[in-house]
Parts: sequence; C-alpha cells; structure tokens
Amino acid sequence: MSEFDLIAHYFTRPDHSTPSVVLGIGDDCALLQPARHLQVISTDMLVEGRHFLAGANPFALGHKCLAVNLSDLAAMGAKPVGFTLALSLPSVDEAWLQGFSAGLFALADQHGCTLVGGDTTKGPLVICITVFGEVTAEGALRRDAAQAGDDLWVSGTLGDARLALAYRRGEIDQDSQSLALAAPRMDMPTPRVALGMALTGIARAAIDISDGLGGDLKHILSRSSVGATLNIDMLPAGPALATQSPDLRREYCLAGGDDYELCFTAPVAQRAAVLEAASSAQTAVTRIGQIDSVPGLRISDSEGRALTLSFPSFDHFTTP
Amino acid sequence: MSEFDLIAHYFTRPDHSTPSVVLGIGDDCALLQPARHLQVISTDMLVEGRHFLAGANPFALGHKCLAVNLSDLAAMGAKPVGFTLALSLPSVDEAWLQGFSAGLFALADQHGCTLVGGDTTKGPLVICITVFGEVTAEGALRRDAAQAGDDLWVSGTLGDARLALAYRRGEIDQDSQSLALAAPRMDMPTPRVALGMALTGIARAAIDISDGLGGDLKHILSRSSVGATLNIDMLPAGPALATQSPDLRREYCLAGGDDYELCFTAPVAQRAAVLEAASSAQTAVTRIGQIDSVPGLRISDSEGRALTLSFPSFDHFTTP
Repeated sequence: MSEFDLIAHYFTRPDHSTPSVVLGIGDDCALLQPARHLQVISTDMLVEGRHFLAGANPFALGHKCLAVNLSDLAAMGAKPVGFTLALSLPSVDEAWLQGFSAGLFALADQHGCTLVGGDTTKGPLVICITVFGEVTAEGALRRDAAQAGDDLWVSGTLGDARLALAYRRGEIDQDSQSLALAAPRMDMPTPRVALGMALTGIARAAIDISDGLGGDLKHILSRSSVGATLNIDMLPAGPALATQSPDLRREYCLAGGDDYELCFTAPVAQRAAVLEAASSAQTAVTRIGQIDSVPGLRISDSEGRALTLSFPSFDHFTTP
Repeated sequence: MSEFDLIAHYFTRPDHSTPSVVLGIGDDCALLQPARHLQVISTDMLVEGRHFLAGANPFALGHKCLAVNLSDLAAMGAKPVGFTLALSLPSVDEAWLQGFSAGLFALADQHGCTLVGGDTTKGPLVICITVFGEVTAEGALRRDAAQAGDDLWVSGTLGDARLALAYRRGEIDQDSQSLALAAPRMDMPTPRVALGMALTGIARAAIDISDGLGGDLKHILSRSSVGATLNIDMLPAGPALATQSPDLRREYCLAGGDDYELCFTAPVAQRAAVLEAASSAQTAVTRIGQIDSVPGLRISDSEGRALTLSFPSFDHFTTP
C-alpha cells in the first residue's frame, strides 16, 4: 500500500466536509473560512514509549492523540473547528491504521472537528496533531487572567490515569478491578471541551492538567503574578484512587499527570454560574482553594494545617 | 535544562511579536486574529534518517524544516503568517538547539512568519511544523484548477538536490566542486513564496515539487481531469546537474525530488504576466509544456519524439 493509498483509504472522508472547510485533504494546503472570532491553535506530539506504551490499542491511541489536543482548546474555552495529522509509521499495518483512524474520527465527529490535512512518513511511531478552534477575545480563558480573591476549581476527578500507569509499571501491586476502573482515564481521556466553552465569560484563567495539578497550576500563578492556597483533601480523587492510601491519593491527585481535567479560576460572585455551566456541560466541578496575592502555591489539609509537600511536575527532559 | 527552560531559551522571542498574534508561546493555545481572507494550513513531519541524514547541520536543518512547509504555502499562492513547532529530541544538546533555532528563525524572519506555539518531548529526532497563511479565494493556486490549453511552467532549476544526495550516498563518483554547488539545494532549499504570491490571479494550478516533477505534476493532472505533454529537454537542470550525462540530467530533473520549485499552469494569454511576476519575485521560470484534454503525462524530447520513460515518484512506503 502506497502513501497515497493509505491516505485515501484511512484518512479521506469526502462525506464529512463542513462548511468552514473550503478545501481539505489532497492539495498543498487546506483552505478554511476565516474564523469569526480569534483563531485558536495548539499542537501536541506523541511518541511511542514516551507518551504511550508500545503495543497500545490503536483505537484508544487514535482517541488519545486528538483528545490531548482538544484538551488544550478546552483550556482556552475554544470551540473546535479542525485539525491536521502528521504520522510517522514503522510500516503500513492495515489493522493498526483501521483502529487508529476509527478512534480518531469517533472523537473528531463528537466535536465537529474536521481533519483538513496531514503528512505520512516512514519512521518511528510518532503522531503530531495540530488543532484549530475559535473563541471570542473576551471569552478566552488565558493563563494570565487569574486575580487575587478568585476561587480555584478543578473539573472531574484526578489521579486515576496515574494509578493505571503505576499498575502497568508494577510500581504498586496490581488490583484488576481497580485497574479496570482506572485504565480508561489513562487510555481514553475525555477532553473537557463542553465545560471550557460553557465557562467563557464566567471563569477567568484556565489550564488543562497534563503534567500534574500542582505543576500546571503554577503556570497560572506565575503568568498571572498571583499565588494560591489549595486544600489537598478537597481534591477529587478518581474512584479507583479513592480506595488507596491517603498518601498515594494526595500524591497522585497533586502530581499524577495525564488527567486532562481543567483547573480554572473564577470570581467568587460567579460560583452559581460556574455550577450552572458545569451542569450544562454534564461535568462535575470541585472548589479546591483560593487565589491570593502572595506568590507561590501553599498547600493545606482539611484542618487548615500548612503542609510541606514536594512532588515534581512531569518534565520530558528532567523526569527519568 | 528542563523542557520549560529549553522553550524559554531557544524558542521564545518576546521582541518578535506581530500584530496578528494576540497570544503566542506560553499558554494552552495561541490566539491569532482571524485571517482577512481564506486561512491556509499545511503540516510536514521530518524524521532523522528519512528526510535528513543523521548528523545534519542543525542550522541548515532548522532552515529546511520550515522551508518545506513554506513551500506548501507558496504552492497555494499564500502569504505566510505563523507556524507551530513540535520537536522530539533524544537529549538537550545546547549547541544543536542553538544552531537549529537560529536557522529556523532566520528563514521565519525573512517571511514575517511567527512561531506561535509548539511542543517538546524526548524521543527520536523528529520535527513537525504546521504553517498558517492566507490567500484570497480567487487567488488560491489549487491543484484542481488546470485547464486544457494552459502553459506548463516550472520555477528555478531541478535535480541538484538529487545530485547532492547521489554524491553523499556514493551512487555516483563524487566531484567536490559539483557537490559544493549542489549541496545547498538539498540542505537549504529556497521556498518560492514570493513567486507563489506574485502568481495569484495569473496562474491557475500549482504544486511544489518535493517527490519529483513527474510524480507531482500527475497530482495536478488527476485532480484537474486533464493531461499534459512535457518537453524533457526543456527542463531547467541545476548548474551542477547540467554538467552530467544527458540520461542522468533527464532522470534527476523528472524524478529527482526535494527540489521545492513550483510547477504551475497558466493561460497562454498570461505569458507576459507570468514573466513579469517571476521578475518581480526575482525567480526564474521556464515554460516546459502544455496542458491538454487527453488524460496522462506524455514526455517528448526536443525533436518532438515521444519518449517512454518510467521513473518512480518517491513514496515513503513503497520506495526502499
């Protein structure tokens, strides 16, 4: 199967064009109608053995590659429009391509996000998606918009993706029932697109949690020149993690990574509006702390005692 | 050096923002002003050992990664606006990053094309750039726009990049003077952005030549439902290739690849306008044949004799 057959067979869907796509796959470039509002762009590259284990289920992988990109749009409050896919493959494995493209398009269709172009090449298994969306200038949930006094919120639950990784790596004793509960959070994360869009005009700053809540929150704090106090025992542990020891719960909630939940700030006066937005997006949200004017992140327990914890945030070049 | 230090040190340039970039590197997504016209998008992934040799000069590589993407914009007649960069690196090699980023930004600055976001990860050396531009709906040089009777044109010269590869692979006896002449065409290709923009409203269809003129031209022919006759002895061989045997000249001009010249069609009535556009873009153009209504590509020599030649176009999964 040639490169062009591969694209035609697995990645071209003539019946899935959308009005905003003037010209899709098959030319030097894609042509899109200009955005009505600001154009929102993000890119993520996933490497076998680094972001996913060798032999990962291709359907889940197709889902996850797009999900992590849509999660960035969600963290900006943007509506997805389209994406490009660059794919380096060791060989043409048709069963793999079938599963990968099915997982990719199932999620793309859920969000009305059209594949508009791409590139395929032979090489190590590497997947790079660039995603496009749009948002109003006033609605954009920027990292630099948090203000002292804001509530600090997080969506969904934390830590189950990290727990699944720990099981698979043999870091902790495997419990098959708990793994079955946690695994989908690692393999098929749900990007909080509906919540992000519902929060525009209500929330101030937002980030999606990919490297761990503690580390990612610090990006909001430094970009906004504010600090925060966070109640570690308010963090919503995932259902699998909730059955683990309090220490592991705290660690994986604060520094687990791969959660793809939204961490966001909103004025106190918007509490009811935040809950309504969450309800309309069918996504749980939990108030976990407060933004203040003292730089840095302070962590307390449910009795209000200050804790000294240091869990490193994931970093591709310093984390082993 | 951490992932964030790496981005801050090599890829963040606060003094290089442009009015169209509302928010650049450092948030979940970039925010751009909506395009005035159609939004043009293309992506290309380059893999070490596949698109460039291991140990390639990092400055040249930074140039080439962006050049191949800008070449796609050129083939659409688009004006470059910005790009994202996803980078998988085996390790943090500061000398390499210094050279790579310098080569990348030197070319980006030439074209007013701003780095708006990206991703870095540890892994095999893989570089994925997604580039954005804009073009008017009437001006876009689409592959499906060629018409019978159009002249067939090519920019610049062909085959020297392939000759440089042949020298380096030891496929032909090395001639250091000739290699010095040919190597820049392989290592530092010039995207024909100014020519592409100057041809909007004059040319009809265009493609950039990355896999070989013959193979790439066939994409125009099939998408436009036309055919072409091409005079192989009119093809403008590069100065290094011009000193080689006629057979090698023909083969590398027609099927060399990595040329990054534009192949385009234009009405006969536009001949003077094409030459004027080429002159304004300071880029040579050569008329090499004619579009007709008989499907397929026919190749003749300077005496008008039909030739039967078959040089395969490069394909990542069928070319060894």
